[in-house]
Amino acid sequence: MPKRKICVVVASRANYGRVKSVLRAIKQHPKLDLQLVVGASALLYRFGRVIDIIKEDGFIPLRSIYYVVEGENLSTQAKSTGLGIIELTSAFEDLNPDIVVTVADRFETMSTAIASSYMNIPLAHIQGGEVTGNIDEPVRHAITKLAHIHFPATQKSAERIIKLGEEPWRVHITGCPSIDLLQNSDLTVSKKLFDRYGGIGYPLNPDQPYILMVQHPVTTEFGKGATQVTATLNALKTRKEQKIVLWPNIDAGSDHVSKAIRIFREKNYTENFHYYRGFSPEDYNAILNNAVCVVGNSSSFIREGSYLGTPAVIVGDRQEGREHGENIIFADYSEDDIARKIDIQIKHGKYACSVVFGEGTAGIQIAQILSEIPLIINKRMTY
Amino acid sequence: MPKRKICVVVASRANYGRVKSVLRAIKQHPKLDLQLVVGASALLYRFGRVIDIIKEDGFIPLRSIYYVVEGENLSTQAKSTGLGIIELTSAFEDLNPDIVVTVADRFETMSTAIASSYMNIPLAHIQGGEVTGNIDEPVRHAITKLAHIHFPATQKSAERIIKLGEEPWRVHITGCPSIDLLQNSDLTVSKKLFDRYGGIGYPLNPDQPYILMVQHPVTTEFGKGATQVTATLNALKTRKEQKIVLWPNIDAGSDHVSKAIRIFREKNYTENFHYYRGFSPEDYNAILNNAVCVVGNSSSFIREGSYLGTPAVIVGDRQEGREHGENIIFADYSEDDIARKIDIQIKHGKYACSVVFGEGTAGIQIAQILSEIPLIINKRMTY
Amino acid sequence: MPKRKICVVVASRANYGRVKSVLRAIKQHPKLDLQLVVGASALLYRFGRVIDIIKEDGFIPLRSIYYVVEGENLSTQAKSTGLGIIELTSAFEDLNPDIVVTVADRFETMSTAIASSYMNIPLAHIQGGEVTGNIDEPVRHAITKLAHIHFPATQKSAERIIKLGEEPWRVHITGCPSIDLLQNSDLTVSKKLFDRYGGIGYPLNPDQPYILMVQHPVTTEFGKGATQVTATLNALKTRKEQKIVLWPNIDAGSDHVSKAIRIFREKNYTENFHYYRGFSPEDYNAILNNAVCVVGNSSSFIREGSYLGTPAVIVGDRQEGREHGENIIFADYSEDDIARKIDIQIKHGKYACSVVFGEGTAGIQIAQILSEIPLIINKRMTY
Amino acid sequence: MPKRKICVVVASRANYGRVKSVLRAIKQHPKLDLQLVVGASALLYRFGRVIDIIKEDGFIPLRSIYYVVEGENLSTQAKSTGLGIIELTSAFEDLNPDIVVTVADRFETMSTAIASSYMNIPLAHIQGGEVTGNIDEPVRHAITKLAHIHFPATQKSAERIIKLGEEPWRVHITGCPSIDLLQNSDLTVSKKLFDRYGGIGYPLNPDQPYILMVQHPVTTEFGKGATQVTATLNALKTRKEQKIVLWPNIDAGSDHVSKAIRIFREKNYTENFHYYRGFSPEDYNAILNNAVCVVGNSSSFIREGSYLGTPAVIVGDRQEGREHGENIIFADYSEDDIARKIDIQIKHGKYACSVVFGEGTAGIQIAQILSEIPLIINKRMTY
Repeated sequence: MPKRKICVVVASRANYGRVKSVLRAIKQHPKLDLQLVVGASALLYRFGRVIDIIKEDGFIPLRSIYYVVEGENLSTQAKSTGLGIIELTSAFEDLNPDIVVTVADRFETMSTAIASSYMNIPLAHIQGGEVTGNIDEPVRHAITKLAHIHFPATQKSAERIIKLGEEPWRVHITGCPSIDLLQNSDLTVSKKLFDRYGGIGYPLNPDQPYILMVQHPVTTEFGKGATQVTATLNALKTRKEQKIVLWPNIDAGSDHVSKAIRIFREKNYTENFHYYRGFSPEDYNAILNNAVCVVGNSSSFIREGSYLGTPAVIVGDRQEGREHGENIIFADYSEDDIARKIDIQIKHGKYACSVVFGEGTAGIQIAQILSEIPLIINKRMTY
Repeated sequence: MPKRKICVVVASRANYGRVKSVLRAIKQHPKLDLQLVVGASALLYRFGRVIDIIKEDGFIPLRSIYYVVEGENLSTQAKSTGLGIIELTSAFEDLNPDIVVTVADRFETMSTAIASSYMNIPLAHIQGGEVTGNIDEPVRHAITKLAHIHFPATQKSAERIIKLGEEPWRVHITGCPSIDLLQNSDLTVSKKLFDRYGGIGYPLNPDQPYILMVQHPVTTEFGKGATQVTATLNALKTRKEQKIVLWPNIDAGSDHVSKAIRIFREKNYTENFHYYRGFSPEDYNAILNNAVCVVGNSSSFIREGSYLGTPAVIVGDRQEGREHGENIIFADYSEDDIARKIDIQIKHGKYACSVVFGEGTAGIQIAQILSEIPLIINKRMTY
Repeated sequence: MPKRKICVVVASRANYGRVKSVLRAIKQHPKLDLQLVVGASALLYRFGRVIDIIKEDGFIPLRSIYYVVEGENLSTQAKSTGLGIIELTSAFEDLNPDIVVTVADRFETMSTAIASSYMNIPLAHIQGGEVTGNIDEPVRHAITKLAHIHFPATQKSAERIIKLGEEPWRVHITGCPSIDLLQNSDLTVSKKLFDRYGGIGYPLNPDQPYILMVQHPVTTEFGKGATQVTATLNALKTRKEQKIVLWPNIDAGSDHVSKAIRIFREKNYTENFHYYRGFSPEDYNAILNNAVCVVGNSSSFIREGSYLGTPAVIVGDRQEGREHGENIIFADYSEDDIARKIDIQIKHGKYACSVVFGEGTAGIQIAQILSEIPLIINKRMTY
Repeated sequence: MPKRKICVVVASRANYGRVKSVLRAIKQHPKLDLQLVVGASALLYRFGRVIDIIKEDGFIPLRSIYYVVEGENLSTQAKSTGLGIIELTSAFEDLNPDIVVTVADRFETMSTAIASSYMNIPLAHIQGGEVTGNIDEPVRHAITKLAHIHFPATQKSAERIIKLGEEPWRVHITGCPSIDLLQNSDLTVSKKLFDRYGGIGYPLNPDQPYILMVQHPVTTEFGKGATQVTATLNALKTRKEQKIVLWPNIDAGSDHVSKAIRIFREKNYTENFHYYRGFSPEDYNAILNNAVCVVGNSSSFIREGSYLGTPAVIVGDRQEGREHGENIIFADYSEDDIARKIDIQIKHGKYACSVVFGEGTAGIQIAQILSEIPLIINKRMTY
C-alpha cells in the first residue's frame, strides 16, 4: 500500500512550535510521507524567518510561498487570506496530498482550511475547540466545521468540538504537540543562547533574573494596540529585573504595537530591555522556563507555561476563557494593575506542573491516527 | 442618527431569489441605506447574468465585481473564493458598511463572510443552520461561526445555530425570504414568459403539462456529474410531458454536467426538451408552480416547492437532511428509480402548502432587525 | 554540464500551434530539458481544451494552472493577466528554469513575460516585431522590451526589433514555428477528421467545397464584436459552399462574438454551417489547406495561409500592417464588401506558396540557439 | 463639456515627489478632475507612509490600496505587480477615468500601465525614454510601448521614445515635474526639519556639514545588496562629517540592504550616523540641497541633484547611462573608490545649476496637454 502523503502547512513562528513534534513523528512514521509547505510570515525577516530554523532542524520544505499582503491591518489580513487560498490551491493541486494538516486559528490557517476543504482533501486540525478572545475565536470554530479530523489538546476542547456537531469518531484528544517539545530537552538559558539570536538592546546576563514580555495585537480591538502595549512596557520599566521583549506577530494591528515598542525603546535606551525577533521553539521554551515572570497575551504562557509552571500575567481579553494551569493571573490594560500582578507572581515564584495541555506524546499519537483513520469527506452534523 | 449602511452581496442566480425581498425591504426602510454589490456568476452570461434582471428590478449595484476563476472544478472553486476575498475586501474598505449581509452556503458566500469578519464588520447570515449534503454543508456552518447575526428560515435551523454555540440574542427566525416572493405575485405561465428568455430547443406550449429539471453538480462527488445527470435526462425522455431544463450553477463539476446535457441535447434534437440559462425569481417561481413535477436537486424544489406544493423528485444526496414539506420524494442516481418516482409524483398531483420555510414576511422582519440590533463584534461561545 | 531547463508556457489554443515544433525540438535536444507549463484558456472546455491534445501528442505538462477570470471583457482580461503573474511566479520559483519561452502577444503572454523578467529569468520571445491592430500590437512590443532573446519570424520583424533598441546578438530570424507543422504532414481532410471533433450543426461532406470562418473580437473595438461577426455570417449565408465556423478566442469581447454566433445559429438551423470549438494544430492546418476560402481575422490565415496559398478575406483592422503572402485580401465590416471579396477569392483559387514566414525549420533552430546563447540578464538599449 | 477625469496613481515615496506638481496643476485646471489613487509602498510604515504627507498637502485619495506582497525579493516583486493589476483594474472600473497617469519604471508603475492599457483607458507616462541599469530599464521602455501619451523630461529621452516607434504627436518634452518643486521653495535645513521625522541615531546639527546616503537594491544583481551597501557605509565611516542615511525602497533585495544597514548601525552606535524612513518631497529637496555630498544610487541625485548642483557620488550601475549634470561622479562598489570620490566631490563643492531635466514648469504643461490632447487608443508603430 502506498504511504499516505501528509501535507503540513507552517505559516508563522508560532505554528512551528505547535507542530514540530508532529512533523518529526510523521517523518519517522513508516506509513506516512511528509510534505512540508512553509508560507506567510514564517518566511519573513520581520517575524524571525522561522523557515531558517526549520531547515536547520532538518526538515525540507517542498514549497516556500510568500502570500502576506503587507500592511498589518484588517484589510491586509483579509487579503492575505485570499491570496493564501489561491497559492495553496495551486500547491495542493501539484502535491496532491491525502491529508492536509493545519494548526490553530490564524488567517493563514483559514487559507489552508478553505483551500483543502474546497478541494475535497481531508483536513486535520490541531488545537481546535479552545475558547479565547480575538477574531481567532470564531475563526477557530469555523475551521472546526471545515475539518474532517480533530486533534484537540484537552478534554474540554474535545467536548466543545462534539457539541459543535462533529462526529465523535473524528475527534481525538492527543494533548498539545507544543508540550512534546518540553520533554527531554535542555530548558536552561545561557549567554550563548542569548547571543545566538542577536537582537538589540541591553546585554543580558543569564545568571540574573529576567521577565519575558510577548504582547500581540488584538484584532477585534484594532487601533488600541499602541496604548495597550505601552501600559505593559511602562509597568515593566518599574521592575529592576532584566526584560526580554519579543516583537509581535503579524495580526492586524501589529504595526501599531511595533511602533509603540520602537518609540518606547528610543526613549529608554539606557533601560535594561533587550528586543528579539524570534527563537527556535526549544530556545523559546528555555527562555519561558527560566523567566521569573512572563507578561503579555501569548498563548504560549498558557500552554507551555502551564506545564512549566512559569508565573504569568495575562494582559487583556485575548486569552479570555482559555483553559490554563495555576500559573496564570489576568490583568487589565493598566500600568498599575499589571505592575501589581507582576509583583504578586514574582513573589510567588514557580508553580507546579499542570498537564491540562497533555503529557508530551501528541506528535506520535497524531501521526499514528493520520496513518489509520478512514478518509471520509462527507460530513454530517450529529444534530 | 445616520442611517445604517447595509451591504448585501449577491453572487449568483440563486442568491438573488433568496434576498430580493430583503433588498426591497432595506431600500424602503427609513433607517437603512442599501449598498448592493453584485459579483461572481451573477455577472456571467453562461449563468444567466442575473445582474440584468437586478437592474430591471430597479436596484442599482454600487459595484460589479468579476471574481470567478474559470474551470468549474475543485481548484477553481477554491481560487475563486480567494480572489473574491481580495476583491470584496477592497470594496468593503471603500463602501465602509455597518453590516454585511450574505446568503446561504456557496463559495462566493464564504468570500463575503471571510472578508467582512476579518475586517470587523458585523456579518448577517440568511439561511444558516440548515442541513444538506455537499461541501455546502460544512461551509454553511463555518459561516455561522463567523457571522454575528443569524436569520434562519426555520425553528429547527435556529435550534441548530444555538447548539453551535451562538448566543441566542443573535438568532432570529424570520422564515426564508424566498417565500416572500410567492405572495401577491402572478404565478401563472404563458407563451410570453417562455419566449422572453429565449433558450434553445422544443417550442413550449404553456397549456400543456411540463416537467422542470434543475440538477447541479455535487462537489463532494466531483467527477460523477455526467453520469448522474444523464440518468435523470434518460428518465425524463421516457415521459411524454414537455421538459424544461435549466443549466447547472457554477459549482465544481458544472462543466461535466453541462457537457452531458449538451451531448444529450445533440442526440435528442427532436425530443420535447427546452433548455434555459435562467429566469427572474418571479418567473422561475411561476414555472416551478405550474410544473406537474420537478426533478433534480435544486434547493428551490424544497424551499419554494414545499410552499407551492409542487410534486418533486430529489435525486441524490445534495439535499439530504434538509427539512421539507410533503411534496418531496427522494430517488437514487438511477434512471429506473427516477422514472418510477416521477410517475408516482405526477399521479399524485399538487400537495398542500407547507409553511415550514415561513409565511412570506422574512424581508420586512430582517430589515427591521438590521435597523435595531446591537452591533457587537466580540462573540463568545455559549459553552 | 547540466542541461538547460527550458520552461515553455502554453496558454491558449493558438499558442500550441505556434510552439509545437519548438516543444518537439527542445524535447529531442541533448542539452535541453523541457519544462512544459499549460495554463489559462488552454485548459478550458469552451476554448477547446488544447491540453488534451497536448497530452495526446506525448507532452507531459509539469503544471496545469487555471488563471482566467471569467467575463471576457476588458476588466477580466486585465485581471487574468494579474492572476497569471501571481500563479506563474510561484510555478517558476518552483521549477527554477534557465530560460522561459513565450509566444506572441496575448494577455497570457504578458503574464509570462512579467513573471519571468521580474524574477531575473532570461525570457525568449517568439513572433516579436510583427505589426498588427488590436491591443496585441502594443503588448507585443512591450514584451520585446522585456525579452532577452528574440525569435522573429521574418526579416522585417527582426529589423523592427533592432529598431526598438534591442542588441542585434539577441535577435535570431528563424521563421515561424507554425510553418514547421506544414512539413511532412497529411494536409487532407476526411469524414473521420470532421467527426473526431464533434461540433454542432450541418453534417460536413469532405468532398464538397467549404469555407472556413475564424473571427476573434477586437479588444480595441470592444462592444462592436456582435455587429462585426454578424456581417461576416450574413455574407457567408449567401454562399452555397459548406461553412465551418470556429468559436472565437478568449479576448475581451469574446462573449459578444459568441453570443452573436449563437443567435445566428438558432435562426439558421437549416443552413449548411458547422460549428467547432477547436482542432489539433495539424488537423486545423488540413482544414485551412483545403478551404476554398477562409474569412475572418485569424492570424493563421496570414501565417500558415500564406504558405499554403489559401485564398483569404481578412475582415477589419485586427491584422492591419502584418506582412503576408499574395493570398490575402482585406474587407470592411460590411456584408456586401465581405461577400464581394469572398467571390473574388473563390474565383481566383489557390495561390502560390509564400515563404515570408519561413521554410519550416524554426523549431530546430530555436532549440539549438536556446542551448548555446549566453544568458545575460542586463540589457542595454542600443541608443 | 464635462471635465476630463485624470486618475493619477502614486505608489511609492519616490513617485510622489515626481508628480506632486502635476497633481497640483491638475487640481487647479478648470477642465480637469483629479482622481488620486494611492497604493503599494506609499501606504507602508516601513517606507515612510507617504500617504500621510499627501493628505497633509491637501490631496484627498479616492482609493488607498494595499497590494505589496511582503518579502522584498524577486518573486514578491512579480506577485505584487500581479496583485496590483487586479486591484487597480477594479478601481479603474469604478472610477472610470478618461486618462490614467503613471510615473517612471517600478513594478507598481507596471501594474498601472497594464491595468489601464488592457482596459482601453489612455495611459500617460511621465519620465519615459531615459536610460539606466536595473530591471527598471526594460520595464520603462515596455511601459512606453503601452502608453498613449508621453511626457519625457529631456530632449534625448523624447528622441528615444520616438525611435521606439511612438508617433511624435504623442510625445511632449515637459521637463521633469520633480524640478518644479525646487522653484519658490525653502531649500534650507533646520533643527526643526531634522526633528520632525524622528528617525534614529546621532543627533544632527543643521549648522554642521553632512553627507546624505540613499542606496537602493539593484534587482538585476539580487543577492549582492548587503555587500554593496556595506562598502558605502564603511567609506562614509571614514568621514568626519555627519551622515544622513535613508532606508532603501521596496525593490527586490531591499531586505538585504536594510539588514546590512541595521547590522552596521548596531556595530557603530557611537558614530555620527542618523537613519530616516522618509521625508516630504520639499524637505527631502532641502536636505539634498544642503548636503556637502550625496552618495548612493538614488535617481534624485541625478535629477534634482543636477539642478541643485549637489556633488554626488553614484555607486554601481543602477543609474548607468542616465543623462546628468556636471555634479555626478561614478564609483565602483569599493570602499576605497567610494571614499576617494567623496573626497573629490567635497573638495569641489557645489556645481552650477543644470537644466537638463527642465526648468520647473512640467506640472503646468502636463495638465494643459492632458486637457487638450486627442484620446486615441489605437497606436501604430511608425515603422
